[in-house]
Amino acid sequence: MKLPETQTILLTRDNGVLHVTLNRPEARNAMSLAMVEELMATFEAVESDAGVRALVLRGSGGHFCAGGDIKDMAGARQKAAEGDREAFFRLNRRFGEMITRANRLPAVLITVLEGAVMGGGFGLACVSDVALAAGDARFALPETGLGVIPAQIAPFVVQRLGLTQARRLALTGARFDGHRALALGLVHEVADSAEELDKKLAELLTQVRRCAPGANRATKALVLDVDQVPMAELLDRAAREFADAVNGDEGQEGTLAFVQKRAPSWAGDRD
Amino acid sequence: MKLPETQTILLTRDNGVLHVTLNRPEARNAMSLAMVEELMATFEAVESDAGVRALVLRGSGGHFCAGGDIKDMAGARQKAAEGDREAFFRLNRRFGEMITRANRLPAVLITVLEGAVMGGGFGLACVSDVALAAGDARFALPETGLGVIPAQIAPFVVQRLGLTQARRLALTGARFDGHRALALGLVHEVADSAEELDKKLAELLTQVRRCAPGANRATKALVLDVDQVPMAELLDRAAREFADAVNGDEGQEGTLAFVQKRAPSWAGDRD
Amino acid sequence: MKLPETQTILLTRDNGVLHVTLNRPEARNAMSLAMVEELMATFEAVESDAGVRALVLRGSGGHFCAGGDIKDMAGARQKAAEGDREAFFRLNRRFGEMITRANRLPAVLITVLEGAVMGGGFGLACVSDVALAAGDARFALPETGLGVIPAQIAPFVVQRLGLTQARRLALTGARFDGHRALALGLVHEVADSAEELDKKLAELLTQVRRCAPGANRATKALVLDVDQVPMAELLDRAAREFADAVNGDEGQEGTLAFVQKRAPSWAGDRD
Repeated sequence: MKLPETQTILLTRDNGVLHVTLNRPEARNAMSLAMVEELMATFEAVESDAGVRALVLRGSGGHFCAGGDIKDMAGARQKAAEGDREAFFRLNRRFGEMITRANRLPAVLITVLEGAVMGGGFGLACVSDVALAAGDARFALPETGLGVIPAQIAPFVVQRLGLTQARRLALTGARFDGHRALALGLVHEVADSAEELDKKLAELLTQVRRCAPGANRATKALVLDVDQVPMAELLDRAAREFADAVNGDEGQEGTLAFVQKRAPSWAGDRD
Repeated sequence: MKLPETQTILLTRDNGVLHVTLNRPEARNAMSLAMVEELMATFEAVESDAGVRALVLRGSGGHFCAGGDIKDMAGARQKAAEGDREAFFRLNRRFGEMITRANRLPAVLITVLEGAVMGGGFGLACVSDVALAAGDARFALPETGLGVIPAQIAPFVVQRLGLTQARRLALTGARFDGHRALALGLVHEVADSAEELDKKLAELLTQVRRCAPGANRATKALVLDVDQVPMAELLDRAAREFADAVNGDEGQEGTLAFVQKRAPSWAGDRD
Repeated sequence: MKLPETQTILLTRDNGVLHVTLNRPEARNAMSLAMVEELMATFEAVESDAGVRALVLRGSGGHFCAGGDIKDMAGARQKAAEGDREAFFRLNRRFGEMITRANRLPAVLITVLEGAVMGGGFGLACVSDVALAAGDARFALPETGLGVIPAQIAPFVVQRLGLTQARRLALTGARFDGHRALALGLVHEVADSAEELDKKLAELLTQVRRCAPGANRATKALVLDVDQVPMAELLDRAAREFADAVNGDEGQEGTLAFVQKRAPSWAGDRD
């Protein structure tokens, strides 16, 4: 995998896991268009490399992501004033393209949520396969309080939390912490110290490494197609993929490892 | 806004909020056809008046709504006996039209749930944007125990609670209280005294007033169209609405208020 | 109802309830193709007999069902080696046909979940109308750890738990107990002793018997068609079914029993 050159995010690869850190701490990692493009390039690289088992997304400086970037908004306002009627549309829609791609990333997407998890940051949390939160993280959809709408975010909030919680959060801008995020089903685990958060992340990565990479990719695609494809058609496709998997390298190694009562080859450390 | 003349519900307007009280306490506010029609007329008035930020729906006499009206049912049975084959169909379907409209009301719909929240009352709770319950409120879908079906209600229960809880509640008639309703995700807050319930309602209305009215209307429509419209199409539309919002009065005032570190104009008291 | 002859499951009928026990304790009730076919034949018998109000599914020997059968898998591998390219497809897809049919069984489907609830057993739990779990039951989707995919199961896990929990469980193989299953919304009740589990089952069956059999069947079909049929069309159909129910034997008996303040005829013990 050739990783892109990046200015706004940090990339480090370790043992089949790509660690991506949003790195604009001076702006609480507000999501700029440059950051969106660098994330897109990173996802593209991951899509073409089956060796990346998981992507861990977090923020530097104690915050995950505080929302959209104010300078980008001012820039779009300037362009709109100059007659570019599509400036705000493009800026907003591009974020939606990024989050849509994140949702379907073939690797397991893990978010580590600390500090501000607002607006676009909230949206990214909503498309992760596993979300770990600090107990004192702060979540909210502040858009309508600012006179705008959570346009590219709200649909993913509905998919994550269900209509009932999504409508309340979007229409009240209510703030809540990591423990409440766990109760709402937004995140899967909560930790009350940095050490505990790191420990939970390490355990999670061990769990993910025990799962066969190819099988996980096929399973993730299947899970995301529920409600998109008629059920009988989906189950037909799934049975074909099951047959492929069981006849493939992973299925044969998995069966053998099970019989021999040993860990399968993919569970070990490698990169 | 010209409010309709009503006999079965009380209407009072206060500071951008319309308070609607189901007012047939002698029948635990059972949902009569007259009440359905008066609610329809009220919703129509609200739809045409962007100044109504929220509609608070509750019942008088300590109950929210105990279900369908027995006299209406007897009347339909009489008509059916006289050869009107559509009598029960019409009565039932009209309630469904009302609850469908309540679900999409452009204002924020808040329900305050006390005492009996049964049948049609349960259904109304399921379409509110925010539901506040008394701890000792009593919820149930008693229909199949009476030999009939929760026809216009069950679909909204599935949307509210998910298939898993909906199928159990509809097929067992299980009763539960406000605390359990919170755990099931049917309501958002529970209070164990009338004072606490009023306090939570007041706080909620303050939160709603901080959200821009037009942005809230656009956001609610967006949230309700998830799963109804293909995702890419919905996100395109949402980006256009975002651009409209940010260029509109609310977006400009919101940006200015944010920069000037003051509350936006819509957060104040007005009617 | 003529019950099928069975080798792998035990069938006993008692007072309108069919008790089905997966009975291959030596294999922790692993789901063999023979078991799938016998369950299919049992469901077919239940579909044609409106007198069966509920079907209680559990396992013998302290386990519910530990997943797919290893001998069947070895047999399919042998057939595949001999050139039968469809062997794994057929084996997998047939399980999916069974679970799809279980999901839409007209009787109330109750699962009693003890010990291992893995793979296919996990899937069966996901299509039950009411699930009761032992506190120390062990749930997991171990497929991708074995190099294969939860092909016929994952879609029902999404319907049961929502996308958020389904994607995590399928991609990590995480194990959890009955208490966690309750918190996730996979099961409805949890019991920490065999006595408590039996008591909860008995109470549940009493509740189900209070519900009219025909009304319950119509309601279950309605609930399962939400998101499959456009809402306005579904509500139209539901209103017709409401009119049929209220004019039918159950609706008339239910109304009369309500007025006379007695239990309706269907609530009593009978078979």
